[in-house]
Amino acid sequence: MAKTNPGRFFEDYSVGQVLHHAVPRTITDGERALYHALYPARHALYSSDEFARNCGLPQSPIDDLAAFHVVFGKTVPDISLNAVANLGYAEGRWLQPVYPGDTLRSESEVIGLKQNSNGKTGVVWVRTRGLNQRDEVVIEYVRWVMVRKSDFDAPAPETLVPELKKSLDVGDLLVPQGLDFSNYDFVQSGEAHRWDAYNTGEMIDHVDGVTVEEAEHMLATRLWQNTAKVHFDLTFRPEGRLIYGGHVISMARALSFNGLANAQMIVGLNGGAHANPYFAGDTIKVWSEVLDKAETGVSGVGALRLRLVATKGGEPFELRNEDGKYLPNVLLDLDYWALMPI
Amino acid sequence: MAKTNPGRFFEDYSVGQVLHHAVPRTITDGERALYHALYPARHALYSSDEFARNCGLPQSPIDDLAAFHVVFGKTVPDISLNAVANLGYAEGRWLQPVYPGDTLRSESEVIGLKQNSNGKTGVVWVRTRGLNQRDEVVIEYVRWVMVRKSDFDAPAPETLVPELKKSLDVGDLLVPQGLDFSNYDFVQSGEAHRWDAYNTGEMIDHVDGVTVEEAEHMLATRLWQNTAKVHFDLTFRPEGRLIYGGHVISMARALSFNGLANAQMIVGLNGGAHANPYFAGDTIKVWSEVLDKAETGVSGVGALRLRLVATKGGEPFELRNEDGKYLPNVLLDLDYWALMPI
Amino acid sequence: MAKTNPGRFFEDYSVGQVLHHAVPRTITDGERALYHALYPARHALYSSDEFARNCGLPQSPIDDLAAFHVVFGKTVPDISLNAVANLGYAEGRWLQPVYPGDTLRSESEVIGLKQNSNGKTGVVWVRTRGLNQRDEVVIEYVRWVMVRKSDFDAPAPETLVPELKKSLDVGDLLVPQGLDFSNYDFVQSGEAHRWDAYNTGEMIDHVDGVTVEEAEHMLATRLWQNTAKVHFDLTFRPEGRLIYGGHVISMARALSFNGLANAQMIVGLNGGAHANPYFAGDTIKVWSEVLDKAETGVSGVGALRLRLVATKGGEPFELRNEDGKYLPNVLLDLDYWALMPI
Repeated sequence: MAKTNPGRFFEDYSVGQVLHHAVPRTITDGERALYHALYPARHALYSSDEFARNCGLPQSPIDDLAAFHVVFGKTVPDISLNAVANLGYAEGRWLQPVYPGDTLRSESEVIGLKQNSNGKTGVVWVRTRGLNQRDEVVIEYVRWVMVRKSDFDAPAPETLVPELKKSLDVGDLLVPQGLDFSNYDFVQSGEAHRWDAYNTGEMIDHVDGVTVEEAEHMLATRLWQNTAKVHFDLTFRPEGRLIYGGHVISMARALSFNGLANAQMIVGLNGGAHANPYFAGDTIKVWSEVLDKAETGVSGVGALRLRLVATKGGEPFELRNEDGKYLPNVLLDLDYWALMPI
Repeated sequence: MAKTNPGRFFEDYSVGQVLHHAVPRTITDGERALYHALYPARHALYSSDEFARNCGLPQSPIDDLAAFHVVFGKTVPDISLNAVANLGYAEGRWLQPVYPGDTLRSESEVIGLKQNSNGKTGVVWVRTRGLNQRDEVVIEYVRWVMVRKSDFDAPAPETLVPELKKSLDVGDLLVPQGLDFSNYDFVQSGEAHRWDAYNTGEMIDHVDGVTVEEAEHMLATRLWQNTAKVHFDLTFRPEGRLIYGGHVISMARALSFNGLANAQMIVGLNGGAHANPYFAGDTIKVWSEVLDKAETGVSGVGALRLRLVATKGGEPFELRNEDGKYLPNVLLDLDYWALMPI
Repeated sequence: MAKTNPGRFFEDYSVGQVLHHAVPRTITDGERALYHALYPARHALYSSDEFARNCGLPQSPIDDLAAFHVVFGKTVPDISLNAVANLGYAEGRWLQPVYPGDTLRSESEVIGLKQNSNGKTGVVWVRTRGLNQRDEVVIEYVRWVMVRKSDFDAPAPETLVPELKKSLDVGDLLVPQGLDFSNYDFVQSGEAHRWDAYNTGEMIDHVDGVTVEEAEHMLATRLWQNTAKVHFDLTFRPEGRLIYGGHVISMARALSFNGLANAQMIVGLNGGAHANPYFAGDTIKVWSEVLDKAETGVSGVGALRLRLVATKGGEPFELRNEDGKYLPNVLLDLDYWALMPI
């Protein structure tokens, strides 16, 4: 009975190692429709082929976060099956849109290792790339996780902590080829606010909330072929199935439409923390803060650096207590770049 | 924090005003499949491309009610965000089938206004049109809602109550171009009953029932990009998330297959009342009454005017108590025209 | 009120009778995506068009079990509406892959009848065929059910118990035209184990488990247009909605990925028993036993005969108690043939 994958342990990783993750996936209009059923997603570029063509794209792409989830889901059996904690993200970039019919696969390179002083766990840094059927990288990001050792006697690897940018510069961001907001329809997009209208430091309460059900987060997580037990098996976690962190990211992003309807494309992920676990029955509410803004160099296309915070039940606009710890109601603290018509 | 849409209040509407609703939506095979997962829909014309071609259409259209929900969902942020009640529908017409790949948008014209005597609310009548990517109207209907005033001192508008037909005449109905029932396959459609077999006044108990779950109605309502809080946010409505009225319409229509399998296309909506709110855990059962029948002028295509009643748990075939009020178990009272082979 | 289908009773069947089942169904990328949301399906051939092309197929087919459910669902109103029990399956064969765009219909021939000694029920054997839009048989299987009599005085038919194979021979199996595993990618498929690596008698514990929700099994069952009341109507079964047996088959097959990732295509169904009913809230876990292995005659393509057992909560590797009865935690005992690269 040894044909199943036990997952990798800390001692199984070495710097420079490249892991080719199974299983490739063709994404279609079906995944696109499901994304709209699972999340209150209304950004027009991802809702209408006509709107997308009017913005210079061949058709409406798959939601940037759906593409991210597909790429991420593949890494779970190789990276986080024996993970104790998902510690962070950095240097995430969307390098080109994913369209229905594209087939994605993922690979990760180990770029850092650090055994913990307890000798029982260690931190693994990987740079993951999602590639399409033409071997073009469509997404890349760094993620680090704490992983158990299986053999406590295995020698500690040489410590290598990669240097990662706190935030991508606007020059690191890729504006999709052909993107053109000169005919952008602010009536059909749902809001009149251009890039000009947003100021660094501005806060936006997105008002809407969604109470999450077990069936929904499991449908979503399976759709991305992320099959980690903790999300599905109540006998494994009798205190409650943990909801996949990506579910709250997508829910939060979709809920941010109301106030950020023109923050159309996600092109950079600077960092993110799943501040507290969340469970079915919790109600997700969302606020945003404008962290920075920049011109992209492409005429008419601005970039907004946004903090996206999901809370349980809509707590006040604070993240941390006086000790610097996340408040118990904070679920997600995400830092990303989006493109917006100037 | 003022970038979110507060919705319109009664004093914000004026007769003749045209509202262009966001967000356009491309409908695909994905939405089609989801419709079949969400509702026990079995009408053959909407299930099989082969069956549809055999009836003169290029392929199987998107369910008429799915198209309606897409058009309707867009109007919510502009029409019913501050609505106290959805009062009625009239003069609904399906003007051409919607196919996978079509992109729909919606616009509404204010056709009536009447401030209530309390000075705090008023009734707004709108005629909504759904248009496709070729700017062809695919659906139109009148809807009226009671909306709150924000500024009680705002002057009352001149009262205009539009004259609306109690029921569409058969001459108002459009038979889709090319529709031809001469090769209609009564074995594959599931029932042998033609238009001839139905008599005005006839009642049909559709037998089947479905107990509704929270996850299902939220998936459905989101799919139509209807994001009204009352359907999703339990902290906003601790007594229970209200199920979108369109969910019971689609459930009821699908459940009416058993006895009306050949009532293939919905072409007219004469009126409809959401008689009582309903909630997850309720079991929907359905009965129909034949209100009228007419020939359409297209050879072989008859029209049946049907009352479709959804009840909680399958109450007897009555609608109202002695005071004329809907019985507490009645959820939906819908009056529509469908096309059927003669 | 007699327009609804009361279903067939035992006395309504006669040997040789052919039943043409409604409603035909076009299967698309939408159904494909939903299958991946409903089940943790990861077999690469059904996940990636690129992987499928690399195996000689034109694109990724619809999951074999999804095709089975579509064919099966159509038979319910004609075969099992008044069934007391679903007794067994035999001689199931997948004769060609189903692709997005294909339209399926079903027909069944009555091949056996046996009235029970109580005079109130009888057993009906049917051979069901699923056909595509080119009238090619894509699936066939034998199923037998115990059906109520409506008229106890109706004479018993002549008893005919068909001879059915306990198991299909490898020669009965059809390898899809063009299937070629010579470029099979064992990295992208998720496991390195070839046909060679499996031995008759070997047991595999698939480790993963899923706790099932009401919304999920109803979405799935409706998607296949199986509308049997017991699955949907809590007022009809206040003790709990029975989950469609096919839901546990698909869940079990998907969960068997971990350890059988290269058992790509299901081509034969030798038999199957739904050992105990199951309900939302139950957690499905799965184990497999290799019953037999054979070469198919097609170069590089081996066949594995597998027993797939789903249990509630992951009971030990036993099926039956000392009286030969299924243990109470056993949900499914399925015997099938799958194709695997040699």
